[in-house]
Amino acid sequence: MKIDGVPYRSIWLDEDGRRVQIIDQTLLPHKLVIRTLSDVEAAAEAIQVMRVRGAPLIGATAAYGVALAMMADPSEDALQRAHDLLRATRPTAVNLHWALNEMLDVLRGAPLGDRAELAYARAARLCDEDVETCAAIGDHGLGILRTLAARKGQGPLNILTHCNAGWIACVDWGTALAPIYRAHDEGIPVHVWVDETRPRNQGAALTAWELGAHGVPHTIITDNAGGHLMRLGDVDVCITGTDRTAANGDVCNKIGTYLKAVAAHDTGVPFYVALPYSTIDWTLETGDDTPIEMRSADEITHVHGRNDAGEIVRVAIAAPGSPAANHAFDVTPARLVTGLITERGVTDASREGLLRLYPERDHAA
Amino acid sequence: MKIDGVPYRSIWLDEDGRRVQIIDQTLLPHKLVIRTLSDVEAAAEAIQVMRVRGAPLIGATAAYGVALAMMADPSEDALQRAHDLLRATRPTAVNLHWALNEMLDVLRGAPLGDRAELAYARAARLCDEDVETCAAIGDHGLGILRTLAARKGQGPLNILTHCNAGWIACVDWGTALAPIYRAHDEGIPVHVWVDETRPRNQGAALTAWELGAHGVPHTIITDNAGGHLMRLGDVDVCITGTDRTAANGDVCNKIGTYLKAVAAHDTGVPFYVALPYSTIDWTLETGDDTPIEMRSADEITHVHGRNDAGEIVRVAIAAPGSPAANHAFDVTPARLVTGLITERGVTDASREGLLRLYPERDHAA
Repeated sequence: MKIDGVPYRSIWLDEDGRRVQIIDQTLLPHKLVIRTLSDVEAAAEAIQVMRVRGAPLIGATAAYGVALAMMADPSEDALQRAHDLLRATRPTAVNLHWALNEMLDVLRGAPLGDRAELAYARAARLCDEDVETCAAIGDHGLGILRTLAARKGQGPLNILTHCNAGWIACVDWGTALAPIYRAHDEGIPVHVWVDETRPRNQGAALTAWELGAHGVPHTIITDNAGGHLMRLGDVDVCITGTDRTAANGDVCNKIGTYLKAVAAHDTGVPFYVALPYSTIDWTLETGDDTPIEMRSADEITHVHGRNDAGEIVRVAIAAPGSPAANHAFDVTPARLVTGLITERGVTDASREGLLRLYPERDHAA
Repeated sequence: MKIDGVPYRSIWLDEDGRRVQIIDQTLLPHKLVIRTLSDVEAAAEAIQVMRVRGAPLIGATAAYGVALAMMADPSEDALQRAHDLLRATRPTAVNLHWALNEMLDVLRGAPLGDRAELAYARAARLCDEDVETCAAIGDHGLGILRTLAARKGQGPLNILTHCNAGWIACVDWGTALAPIYRAHDEGIPVHVWVDETRPRNQGAALTAWELGAHGVPHTIITDNAGGHLMRLGDVDVCITGTDRTAANGDVCNKIGTYLKAVAAHDTGVPFYVALPYSTIDWTLETGDDTPIEMRSADEITHVHGRNDAGEIVRVAIAAPGSPAANHAFDVTPARLVTGLITERGVTDASREGLLRLYPERDHAA
């Protein structure tokens, strides 16, 4: 997508074809800073401190992290070290494991002299595939939005989203935001309620920034407000992403997603979750077994922002001495999800629904 | 309650017996600053910019605002001006209207020369009544917590609260927090999950500060986290306050309350609302007719905090140029409320339940 009219992806190679470039998302929306990742340690750090975040982009960055490692040392030891280092960065998004496994599949057994080349090629293809996947999610989600807009008749379609599942959470297009970009570009009037998404404010900082840069009408709201807007009839549909989808259709996503889903269910608002196939963890029977990342209490007790001088500073907002608990994700049970939007189409959130789209996974058949 | 061992109320008279003193809650938890209100305009400003907040304390401050006005000019005109000025400060909390009506009842028809005296006496009584009322709410709520703690058997009773309905939202004790203080003082082990309560962070800034000052174990969480904790079984009961309770038991409270109530309902966690009789608006058939205050978008796009130098500064946290909508309250339908805790006892959230406690309101009988 575009920033100030210039097309960007969220991750790309430097002119040397080796070093990896990313937008440092910890500095958005205040500053657009491009960072260069020159080794696997830098890639792991970027994932860990959330310079890159979003399930698909975490996977893409991990893939390039392996490529950086293979460039420096293509040995089996180095491959295992790179895998272990990257895999330990964040526990919840399963795309990380998926991308690392994809890399291992290509590299294990390959001659050492070919490994760097093979790794860069697989990482590049993984990124291109992510773009295609997200574009397809956009197409399938567009159908839903077109139908809802036609049914509504007049006024913009009001869509609520939580966290950031836009193009900067992926390589391009996004998951939850892809259908919205498609609808907007087609001339369907849309308006997005953007949950600010405490504690890291991915909504107010990233989603609002993305939508603003693309010209999509939107309004930031607190995480507290969505239920009220649903009760007022001011939300026509919710769409979020997910960091891990269990085989039964339960979705693990940014903390607070469950609250919106249960309110949507209570008020009759459709609640869709958009995801690429790489986000499905077929080994999880239900979402309740998803490992939930606990992050630092500092993210709750302190906030980063731009002061009047334009500097990014950190301020304390909580009562001194009070502890804080920072659960980063929650699980929304499938019964609260109207449908899953994947690159293969829309299905109901259930084992049967997922297997209809991915019949090759039906090992019992 | 106590701050650093010193007993405080949230509002009291200066040594001159005329000027009114408050804790400036916009500076908490960073600084404890006592402000003096010398005229009705200062009282109105304190309510408007939320130096004082919380439905009962808004009412108490308005009562003293009328007294300050009567001291300066006891004329009918001045009384009406004071009433109108104070009534316009905030639209949602009905205690404001109730307190102003109480003052008018005493002052209208009274000789001009007696008005200041009468106004101060009524305002002081109103404050004392609030303390008694909140203490009674604490007693009735204590019964609920004692039962739940006995049923749980071991480990602390985990109580989730939203916003601040503690002693600094009232004159003393609080509404939602009164039962918690009582339980803690009785030796029942309690632990409070404190919703930070964006955008103004009354939870992280005020509730955590209050509970910490009294020694009640607590943990700050984002507004997004409560549903997850309920699903995990880590919340035994929710208790919130309310700014206006409709005659059918619907409760209007700080934005986000509905999300917690609907999640509590979904997970089988009891959800109680604590309130004094002055918060009941018998003229409202349902909560849907409650006027919902819209506050400045700045409260969402900017945050006040303490920088490393200890100064309180304002920082921007949202994407520049993105609009924000700041609905300050929402309505929780009575069907999601397990019970109302009032100074007269605990009842179900319904017209019949309220009339059992307040039979004198049953005009149809």
